Amino acid sequence: MGGTEKLYQNQAAATPALVRTAIARGEINTPTAGLCPGYAQANLVILPQEWAFDFLLFALRNRQACPLLEVLDPGEPFLRVLAPGADVRDTLPRYRVWRQGRVVEEPTDIHQYWREDLVSFFLGCSFGFDEALAQAGLPVRHRDLGRNVPMYRTGLPAAPAGRLAGPLVVSMRPMPAHLVDKARKVSERYGESHGGPVHAGDPAQIGVAELEGPHYGESVPVEEGEVPVFWACGVTPQAALEQSGVEFAITHAPGHMFISDLRADELNGKTLI
Amino acid sequence: MGGTEKLYQNQAAATPALVRTAIARGEINTPTAGLCPGYAQANLVILPQEWAFDFLLFALRNRQACPLLEVLDPGEPFLRVLAPGADVRDTLPRYRVWRQGRVVEEPTDIHQYWREDLVSFFLGCSFGFDEALAQAGLPVRHRDLGRNVPMYRTGLPAAPAGRLAGPLVVSMRPMPAHLVDKARKVSERYGESHGGPVHAGDPAQIGVAELEGPHYGESVPVEEGEVPVFWACGVTPQAALEQSGVEFAITHAPGHMFISDLRADELNGKTLI
Repeated sequence: MGGTEKLYQNQAAATPALVRTAIARGEINTPTAGLCPGYAQANLVILPQEWAFDFLLFALRNRQACPLLEVLDPGEPFLRVLAPGADVRDTLPRYRVWRQGRVVEEPTDIHQYWREDLVSFFLGCSFGFDEALAQAGLPVRHRDLGRNVPMYRTGLPAAPAGRLAGPLVVSMRPMPAHLVDKARKVSERYGESHGGPVHAGDPAQIGVAELEGPHYGESVPVEEGEVPVFWACGVTPQAALEQSGVEFAITHAPGHMFISDLRADELNGKTLI
Repeated sequence: MGGTEKLYQNQAAATPALVRTAIARGEINTPTAGLCPGYAQANLVILPQEWAFDFLLFALRNRQACPLLEVLDPGEPFLRVLAPGADVRDTLPRYRVWRQGRVVEEPTDIHQYWREDLVSFFLGCSFGFDEALAQAGLPVRHRDLGRNVPMYRTGLPAAPAGRLAGPLVVSMRPMPAHLVDKARKVSERYGESHGGPVHAGDPAQIGVAELEGPHYGESVPVEEGEVPVFWACGVTPQAALEQSGVEFAITHAPGHMFISDLRADELNGKTLI
């Protein structure tokens, strides 16, 4: 958490390629909210091929939480579409290594874990529309505070697929009550970044007991007159990995995303996979 | 080719459920073009789970040829969405059983081949827009002649995925030259039924040497002043199965489709999987 990432946050001119290089060198290992504003960021799930069908079906059945942006062939570490030539093994600031459904390590690169049967899935991220929210005059509290976005497991089930099942996970942004509808309209234009919110208002209605102490990320305050607004989140697969007890997996650490070369507003309707 | 299927072709009132029941009883074993006009029909690919990821990725990378309508969990023979409760094992008029990439049998049901590791994929079919073409005053030659549609392997490669690779397969409908654009516009509205054509005009430009003797289905005449128009076809996976030499698979026999309970014009933009 030194000054390097601040440098990148303040340099609007820093390209995704430059930031990914700094990440690969170990110079940035923080959450990526606010980096490269306007560029699409992606959640990462890496699974052995033996689990890849279950996961691809899980993603297709949960499109709002898991908008598929790119899928790599088994054993292939280099992206083709989101950032041609980028290496999935060191271009995210922090990863999670899972064994038997538990996080056993959070390394900053995964070269030592790589196997020829691993399949990498990239899913859209709500950080993609944060810049559009800000441009529309809406608050983006976590970004303003330099924090990771708060994320919650809900009481809503994701659609199961094969051995994968679990709750829907959501991210939360507080909005002034009179701007909730505007936030909805702005985010709905970003279908590949989870689109419009799944809920606005009482967290209990989606099975979130309290907003303090989110399950992932960091807490942000909901001010007087504000309403918590919840968007489907690409951490949903991690809850399913945990519940499934999958023997081995690698994901991004929540909030520590892959930063793509494509702008979030270019993604819609594109066939990227 | 007795009188029974004619009965159904002539009875506009015959519902998909009624026709599927007649198919399951063995009373219809012909191509399904013209049956239940306006209802979405589907191509079928059944693969062992060990090949299911490769195929799902192949379909996603070749959306125009392989628009995914429904995917069943491993071992599950009953549909949930296209026709809830229908049994994939006997509701198509004719199947193909593949071993080592070769068709070894064309049975009218597949109960005896069923295994707990089989995954069923349903893909959109251009028969879905034939009724719209007819309603727009466009010829649908194969239907008018009571034939199966002619299908051709092209020289265009499908996007490979894992162990699956092969040529794009297309269906062909002759259109009067001045109506080609209208045919394009009508079919473009049916994105889940392959959408607009991939080519109109000289077959050689897409690597089809001659129109006589199609690779699948039956020949239809192209009259004076008509242009052959080619649409991406859900038989594309069968060409990839052949090239891959997959040890075991089941598909529909070309032209012998699954008839769904959904109208083709209801499919667009729906999340069915």
